[in-house]
Amino acid sequence: MIKNDLFLRALKGETVDRPPVWMMRQAGRYLPEFQEIKIKYDFFTRCQTPELASEITVQPIRRYGMDAAILFSDILVIPQAMNIDVEMKPNFGPYLPNPIRTAKDLDRVIVPDVQDTLGYVMDAIHMTKEKLKDEIPLIGFAGSPWTILCYCVQGQGSKNFDLAKAFCFTQPKAAHELLQKITDTTIAYLKAKVKAGVNAVQVFDSWGGMLSPTDYQEFSFQYIQQIVDALKEEIPVIVFGKGCWFALGEMAKSGAAALGVDWTCSARNARYLSGGKITLQGNFDPSRLLSPPSEIKKMVHQMINEFGKDQYIVNLGHGILPNIPLENAGAFVEAVKEYKQY
Amino acid sequence: MIKNDLFLRALKGETVDRPPVWMMRQAGRYLPEFQEIKIKYDFFTRCQTPELASEITVQPIRRYGMDAAILFSDILVIPQAMNIDVEMKPNFGPYLPNPIRTAKDLDRVIVPDVQDTLGYVMDAIHMTKEKLKDEIPLIGFAGSPWTILCYCVQGQGSKNFDLAKAFCFTQPKAAHELLQKITDTTIAYLKAKVKAGVNAVQVFDSWGGMLSPTDYQEFSFQYIQQIVDALKEEIPVIVFGKGCWFALGEMAKSGAAALGVDWTCSARNARYLSGGKITLQGNFDPSRLLSPPSEIKKMVHQMINEFGKDQYIVNLGHGILPNIPLENAGAFVEAVKEYKQY
Repeated sequence: MIKNDLFLRALKGETVDRPPVWMMRQAGRYLPEFQEIKIKYDFFTRCQTPELASEITVQPIRRYGMDAAILFSDILVIPQAMNIDVEMKPNFGPYLPNPIRTAKDLDRVIVPDVQDTLGYVMDAIHMTKEKLKDEIPLIGFAGSPWTILCYCVQGQGSKNFDLAKAFCFTQPKAAHELLQKITDTTIAYLKAKVKAGVNAVQVFDSWGGMLSPTDYQEFSFQYIQQIVDALKEEIPVIVFGKGCWFALGEMAKSGAAALGVDWTCSARNARYLSGGKITLQGNFDPSRLLSPPSEIKKMVHQMINEFGKDQYIVNLGHGILPNIPLENAGAFVEAVKEYKQY
Repeated sequence: MIKNDLFLRALKGETVDRPPVWMMRQAGRYLPEFQEIKIKYDFFTRCQTPELASEITVQPIRRYGMDAAILFSDILVIPQAMNIDVEMKPNFGPYLPNPIRTAKDLDRVIVPDVQDTLGYVMDAIHMTKEKLKDEIPLIGFAGSPWTILCYCVQGQGSKNFDLAKAFCFTQPKAAHELLQKITDTTIAYLKAKVKAGVNAVQVFDSWGGMLSPTDYQEFSFQYIQQIVDALKEEIPVIVFGKGCWFALGEMAKSGAAALGVDWTCSARNARYLSGGKITLQGNFDPSRLLSPPSEIKKMVHQMINEFGKDQYIVNLGHGILPNIPLENAGAFVEAVKEYKQY
């Protein structure tokens, strides 16, 4: 049904001629065509208007022809739907004016009807699927409950999310209540996305790497496991935990179809730590896209050689940076497409 | 000569009744007696006045009786001595108004005479040694050349030090020139500290964990190796790389006496990755000092059981946070001293 099914075949672990390639945040700020839309519409307008979200989603595909598209959206649409105010401040990032700091603050947090509150995401999926014309698969995503909690409690981005960790360590009961509400909302949200037509989902645990392995188990992974359990029969689930090398072994047993890894975890370590049998995705350092294009191509080929062409999805180890030259992003994708020649 | 030599014996790998304990940033903002000094004198006055630096150094020892003192100072005294302006802005952190961004910017960077530029540190060591009266050892420290470069190029703290990485990846020749200048200065600086009387030195690679293993080798570890090579015959060297679990194997072969690890690396992983023969230091999550004191004690005892009491130095996995209650910091140290009972 999908013409280029390289990505879906890699998720199943099938043998391929070359690995598929896409880039986290590929629909984003490094593209001039994205900047044109950004100037005219604010962040949540872009997310909430299906015409805009679908257009932004397909922009990188038109330019570079990646093997998968990922719906333009944000992980913080979930707390917003849960009755927690979220603002996106220019040159600052997310800002939550009424953060969760006590058990009492949880009274106002709801598990919403996702169709009522996030129907615009499903509309954007329908519209994107029309634009993609079954050429390539579409990925839907959500933040991990822990990563969402980080923002809900801290109220903004942070180097160490000290307030979020303090909340968990001093008020664990309230923390678990919030995590469960986020998990329940996320499961309903991702199921609705599947119904709307996405072909795979990715859970982003951007801040799991700030926890010790024991605390990761308690405050992050058990909720990711609930999400994987609820989705895995319906659709392939990719789990990406930045800095979560220490949890790759457990993640590999979770039922996820693939695991994302960041650039601090070598291919060899990633294969070893994940048990060697699961599809891996990653792990080019986003800053390394600042190297000259010829060097990027060499590094990409070396990366594929190290991971192996099968059970592997070429990607960055985190989102693409806004200051990456267009030619360099292109070199990354081209290098993968040229790989069969080597 | 040193009455309580537990710390030095652990560095030598000798069998001990209980492991020694100290805390990174133990001379710092969580102490009310430090706050009293902080109100009266700005950051660099505190660093540059031997009476103040030595007083701040011994404050935590008086209160808690750690097994080692660490000289109050800052890693950024090095770029300051190298003719790079460094300011410490309240509620902001370090700010370098004239960052290094091009090869040309390097012309003004000098490798200084450390006695001329950093003599105040040696004076503070002499004064601290007098105050400590050979009761416990004194640790001197420096930032790793890569970590210092991060600040010199970025000009301030950062989540990802994108400008520093861009500098290395687009202007590698200039980056290596700067790294070598920092390394040469650091070696002279640490040798002067040894001469002044410190009993061990620690190299802090706070931002090494932002590099891929290959880039870590090129931009960080080779310079740390130069420092260890230059110092190891004179004094025990501790190498601490936050997030640098992937390099523990190489670090263990460097000639360092001990390696610091952070809380994302379990005792078992740390022992395995470092080859099982070198003294390790760490790795309590600083945020976990917000847990109730009774829970802290349990977690510390479990941590010692996991690392083993020998070839181990109890510490945090990063600096103590300013908002830690005094009782909780006390519980951490007490738990170690009580360990022999278990």
